Amino acid sequence: MALADTLGVRARAASKMLRIASSEDKQKALECIADALIRRQDEILEANREDIMAAEMNHMSPSMVDRLRLTEERIQGMADGVRKVAVWPDPVGHVLEDYTLPNGLRVRKVSVPLGVIGIIFESRPNVTSDCAALCIRAGNACILRGGKEAFRSNFCIASVMRDALKGSPLPEDAVQLVTDTTRGSAEEMMNMVGYLDVLIPRGGAGLIRSVVDNAKVPVIETGAGNCHIYVDKDADIDMAADIVCNAKTSRPSVCNAAEKLLIHRDIAAKALPVIARKLREKNVELRGDDASRRIIPDMKQATDEDWGREYIDLIMGVKIVDSVEEAIDHIERWSTHHSDCIVTENDEAARKFQAGVDSAAVYHNASTRFTDGGELGLGAEIGISTQKLHARGPMGVNQLVTYKYVIDGNGQIR
Amino acid sequence: MALADTLGVRARAASKMLRIASSEDKQKALECIADALIRRQDEILEANREDIMAAEMNHMSPSMVDRLRLTEERIQGMADGVRKVAVWPDPVGHVLEDYTLPNGLRVRKVSVPLGVIGIIFESRPNVTSDCAALCIRAGNACILRGGKEAFRSNFCIASVMRDALKGSPLPEDAVQLVTDTTRGSAEEMMNMVGYLDVLIPRGGAGLIRSVVDNAKVPVIETGAGNCHIYVDKDADIDMAADIVCNAKTSRPSVCNAAEKLLIHRDIAAKALPVIARKLREKNVELRGDDASRRIIPDMKQATDEDWGREYIDLIMGVKIVDSVEEAIDHIERWSTHHSDCIVTENDEAARKFQAGVDSAAVYHNASTRFTDGGELGLGAEIGISTQKLHARGPMGVNQLVTYKYVIDGNGQIR
Repeated sequence: MALADTLGVRARAASKMLRIASSEDKQKALECIADALIRRQDEILEANREDIMAAEMNHMSPSMVDRLRLTEERIQGMADGVRKVAVWPDPVGHVLEDYTLPNGLRVRKVSVPLGVIGIIFESRPNVTSDCAALCIRAGNACILRGGKEAFRSNFCIASVMRDALKGSPLPEDAVQLVTDTTRGSAEEMMNMVGYLDVLIPRGGAGLIRSVVDNAKVPVIETGAGNCHIYVDKDADIDMAADIVCNAKTSRPSVCNAAEKLLIHRDIAAKALPVIARKLREKNVELRGDDASRRIIPDMKQATDEDWGREYIDLIMGVKIVDSVEEAIDHIERWSTHHSDCIVTENDEAARKFQAGVDSAAVYHNASTRFTDGGELGLGAEIGISTQKLHARGPMGVNQLVTYKYVIDGNGQIR
Repeated sequence: MALADTLGVRARAASKMLRIASSEDKQKALECIADALIRRQDEILEANREDIMAAEMNHMSPSMVDRLRLTEERIQGMADGVRKVAVWPDPVGHVLEDYTLPNGLRVRKVSVPLGVIGIIFESRPNVTSDCAALCIRAGNACILRGGKEAFRSNFCIASVMRDALKGSPLPEDAVQLVTDTTRGSAEEMMNMVGYLDVLIPRGGAGLIRSVVDNAKVPVIETGAGNCHIYVDKDADIDMAADIVCNAKTSRPSVCNAAEKLLIHRDIAAKALPVIARKLREKNVELRGDDASRRIIPDMKQATDEDWGREYIDLIMGVKIVDSVEEAIDHIERWSTHHSDCIVTENDEAARKFQAGVDSAAVYHNASTRFTDGGELGLGAEIGISTQKLHARGPMGVNQLVTYKYVIDGNGQIR
C-alpha cells in the first residue's frame, strides 16, 4: 500500500482531531510522552544498542556512532525537551486581526495548525521525539522518516510515543514513523499531495537539495550555512578575534558556524595577524585571496569554489574588501543567507550592513552561533529555514502554524 | 543566454536597491508608472489591437477575446489600480518583535521584501501592471511571464513601465518581462534557484499544477476553488437561497464561486426546492446525490467525480448530509480549502463548522464571493493562496514580505 493511503489517511484523520484539541489536551499528551520515554528507557536503550552494533559492524566512523548513541542521560534530555515544549504557550487560536467591513462582515484572521507535517531526517534518534513534540504542541500530526542506521532506535521511540498517546486525550496517529527507510519512501513523501501540508528535510546538503528539487508538496528548505564575518575598518580587533574564533571553532560542524572572514583593507594589516593567530591555535586552516596572502603568506590560495562553500570543518576563507559595500556585495553573491555578521564600532556601518545584507539573521558585534531557536528565545526548533517563504531562521512551535479567515455575516452577498 | 543569466542577474541587482528604497521612492515610482500608462495609452491600445486581430484570426472564443481586449477605460482602471497600491502603507521595515536576551543581545524581527518574485500568468494584460505594482510597493523586483496571445500588449505595458522607472528613484529592472512565451521559458523560471525567491502561477488548473509539480524554486499555489455552502437545519431558508444563488451565479468563472451545496436532511425537503428554483432561474444545472434526487427527481445524478470538481460553470453539485459533522467531513475530503460557508441561525453549529473546516476562508451566513483582496480590505491581490505556507487566501502587498532577525551585541560569543 502506498504511504498516502496508509500513514497519509491516518495522519489527516488525526489532524482533524488535533485541529480542535485544547491547549491542555496537547500539553497532557506531551507529558504522557515524556513520562513514557523515561519509564521505557530500557527498551529504547536496548533498541539503540542493536543500531550501534550494526553501525560498528558496518565500520561507521566513531563520531557518527557517537551521534547515534543514546544513554540514560540523553533520554532524560529528550524527555526534558518534550516537557519544555509542552509548556510553551499554545500558538493556535490567536486572533491576529479582527475587523468589521463597511458591509457588516466581521473578519477575524486566526492562527491554526499547518495540518500534517512530514519530516525527513538523517541525524540522531532524539530528533524523533523533538520533532514530534514541536508538531503536537502546534496542533499538527506528523509523519517522520529517519535514517536507516537509526531505525531500531527511532522505531522504538515512535512506538513508545504512540503507546503514550493512546493513554492521552490525543490520537496515537498524531505521530507516525515511516518503516521503509529506502529512497523510495522519501520519494513517496515528496509526492504526498493532499496529505502533507509541508515537508521539512533535516540533514545533509544532498538530502535537502533532493527534497527541494523533487517534492510536489510544499517544502521548507533548511540548513545550509555559508556564514560570513565582516571585520570593518572601525572594528575592535580583540572583539573581532573573539567573535571570529568563536563562530568558527566552537562547533565547526553546525550550520551557524562561520565559514568566511572578510576584512576591511584599512585594518587588515593589523587585525588579520591577530585573528589568524587565534584561529591557528585552534587548528583552523586558512585560505586567502591575494591581498590577504600578502599579509599572511603561508595561507593557501582561495578560489571561487571556496567562496561558495560550506566547509563544516576547521577551514576558513579570508578576503580583503575595500568597503562595507564590497562586503555586502560579496555576501549577496556567495552567502546562503543564513547568518552574517559585521564587527564594528561604527554605528553607521552597522546599520548599512544590517539593511543591505539579506540573510535570516544579520549580526552586529556578536557570534553567528546564536542563530538557534533556544539561543534566540524561540524555544526548541524543528530546523533553521534558509528560504524566505513562511518562516526564516529558527523554526520553533510558533512557526508551525498558519492562519485562516473566519468571517461572520448576516446574509451578505456580493 | 539563459533567463537566469540575463533577467535573473538584473532582477537580483534591482532587488538589492529596492530592499533599501524608502517608502516615498517606491510611491513615486508607482506614480510615474501610473502617469505613463495614461500618457502612452495610444501605444498600448495599438499593441493590443494587434493581439486582438491575431486572436480573431486564430478563432479565439469571443469571451476570451473580451478578456484580452483593452480600452481607454480599462487602461484608466490599470492606472487607478497602480495609484491605489502606491498609497498602500509600506509593509517593509516594521519591527515585528523587539527583545533583549539575558546575555544582552538585542533581537529585532523586522519585515523585509521577499526579493525577486516570478509570476507566470495566462489571463488579461492588466495583470502585468497589477502584479508589478504590488511587487514594487513591497520592495520586490519582479519577472513577469504572460501568455503568448497577449504578448504584444504585455510587452508594450512592460516597456512603458520600465521607461517610467527610468525617470523614477527606482531601477528599471524592478520590472522585467520574459519575451519568450514558449513552454521552455516557463520551465526555466521554475528552475531559477538562487534568482527567484518565489514563483506564483496565476491561471488555469493545468498551469498551476505544472508549476507546483515541477518548480525547484519556492512556489505559492493559487486559485483552485471547489467551494461549498452548507445549509444547516437551523438555516434561514431565504437567506440560504440568496447566498447560494449569489455564490454560484454572480460570477461562475472565478475561484470563489460556490460549486457544491450541502443541505441538512431535516431542512432539505423544505429548503432544497426553494434554492433549486432560484438557481434554475439562473440556468444552473443541478447534479444531486440519491437523497436529494428524491426531493428534486429531475436533477442529474452526481458522482464522486462531481464532488472533487471545480466546474467554473453554471453547474452545482447537491448532497444531503445528516449533521454539521458530516458536512465538515465531506468538505475535509473534497474541498480545495479555498472558501466554504455554513448558513445557520445556530451559533453553536456555526462555531463548530468554522473550527472544523480547514479552509483559507470559512464563512457563516455570507457568500463565498467575498474571498478577494479588495472585498476583505487587503487592497489589490496578486492571487489567492490555497496552500498553507506563508500566506493563505488573498495575497496583497502585506503578504509579499518576509522578515529577518537584526541582532545587535557588544561582543557576545557562545
